[in-house]
Amino acid sequence: MLNIVENNKSFNGYQRVYQHQSKSNNCTMRFALYLPDIFENIPVLFFLSGLTCNEQNFIQKSGFQRYASEYKIAVIAPDTSPRGNEISDSNNSFLGQGAGFYVNAKENPWSKNFMMYDYITKELPKIIEENFSFSSSKIGIFGHSMGGLGAIQCALKNNDYYKSVSALAPICSLHKSDFAREAMKNYFNNDKDLINSYDPINLIKEYKSSFENIYIDVGSEDEFFHDLFINDFVEICNSVNQKIIFKKRLGYGHNYYFVQSFIKDHIEYHLNILKE
Amino acid sequence: MLNIVENNKSFNGYQRVYQHQSKSNNCTMRFALYLPDIFENIPVLFFLSGLTCNEQNFIQKSGFQRYASEYKIAVIAPDTSPRGNEISDSNNSFLGQGAGFYVNAKENPWSKNFMMYDYITKELPKIIEENFSFSSSKIGIFGHSMGGLGAIQCALKNNDYYKSVSALAPICSLHKSDFAREAMKNYFNNDKDLINSYDPINLIKEYKSSFENIYIDVGSEDEFFHDLFINDFVEICNSVNQKIIFKKRLGYGHNYYFVQSFIKDHIEYHLNILKE
Repeated sequence: MLNIVENNKSFNGYQRVYQHQSKSNNCTMRFALYLPDIFENIPVLFFLSGLTCNEQNFIQKSGFQRYASEYKIAVIAPDTSPRGNEISDSNNSFLGQGAGFYVNAKENPWSKNFMMYDYITKELPKIIEENFSFSSSKIGIFGHSMGGLGAIQCALKNNDYYKSVSALAPICSLHKSDFAREAMKNYFNNDKDLINSYDPINLIKEYKSSFENIYIDVGSEDEFFHDLFINDFVEICNSVNQKIIFKKRLGYGHNYYFVQSFIKDHIEYHLNILKE
Repeated sequence: MLNIVENNKSFNGYQRVYQHQSKSNNCTMRFALYLPDIFENIPVLFFLSGLTCNEQNFIQKSGFQRYASEYKIAVIAPDTSPRGNEISDSNNSFLGQGAGFYVNAKENPWSKNFMMYDYITKELPKIIEENFSFSSSKIGIFGHSMGGLGAIQCALKNNDYYKSVSALAPICSLHKSDFAREAMKNYFNNDKDLINSYDPINLIKEYKSSFENIYIDVGSEDEFFHDLFINDFVEICNSVNQKIIFKKRLGYGHNYYFVQSFIKDHIEYHLNILKE
């Protein structure tokens, strides 16, 4: 059952937050939904957020609602991990609550609740399909930082469901990025095959050319650029003929001022693919 | 001296936050400045925020940067009060830090630091003029909730400096609003003449027709509407032939989802007056 916990009018539509019991994560989860004023059979975009974020950051700071309203697109922004006092956590921002990495954890105690991959790619789509009458085929996914990683891995592994994918300043290597180190150690005991099964660079080799294009933006002054490994990702895309639209944005950082500046471009990118 | 504490590229310009020693408030103050990519002799808008806010809320949540960038307008968003461990405060959200009400307090201990009226209308304009080369005549002011009150009172009392004024869901009565009760008691010992010297409804009587128009937006579902006394303000404007553009926006609340939905309209309203 879905409970509405927030419902605020925004650009003629409604910015909502829903709460529900998640089977995948074995806890209560929240996700945000922007509902334009027309919503039958419209395209759906999933936006995945970065480390330390919950479902609020994107809906409060990106200003996407203006474009979702104008173009009549439903936008779903899930939380980044399970939450609650009874859920495992750590003092490290890169592990536990707020740091789900959109994977299914295999190691105790994380495997009890940190099943974000199943939540994002299976449970949440089913909930959306059962409760709303959006298009069941015009589906795209995008995200920021850890959420950019999530968008790419979910899309590459489910190219029958997601028809378009883009990312803002995505983490592109689960093997090399310092951001992922604690998570990979704790969720997977550093199992290389498990990491490979979610690693964008490895997935591109396995699933080459499943999307006509992948669109990536990053700020030239992104303070975490050295830890994102986007150049490695672009290189591997080129080597397997996966087309990529890669834009380095002069002067921008890693933050939501960067996201707000280019969110229109991302929404229009998805719309152009999904409207066909 | 102005110190830059934040500098993030946003929509081709920069969203900055400055820190400086304030003579009026006798403490360190922060204000936000959006600087478009062209900034010589451009219009300047001051945006005043509501209760509990600081300089961050508007710059993170309203999405105004897109329009300030497009129209080449400098936008200054000051903090709502003095701040710091040594500054008087209370447990009440409506009194002390975060609740300056844009007045000069007269009673101890508040009068030592809570001189927001002088800060906004005298000190900050001087700082802007000395440090930037924006237009010195194309100046407008607007705000939300307590900041809408601030914008109206500052504009009516300084119509030689501010050329345009608008407000989103403004508190319009310092005498009647529950939001202002503790502040008026503590800052002014409930002195009726002092309150009148800042009260929008009283000021309209004193300064009638100093602006060709005053533009006000409010959501029809504003949960605080009964405590804003906007209808009283509109009525007194009508009675003294102060033209007012008053729009009740169907379904919107008091929050930043309301602000983000109509911020473009407010910026365009000011621009149309200031460009002449």
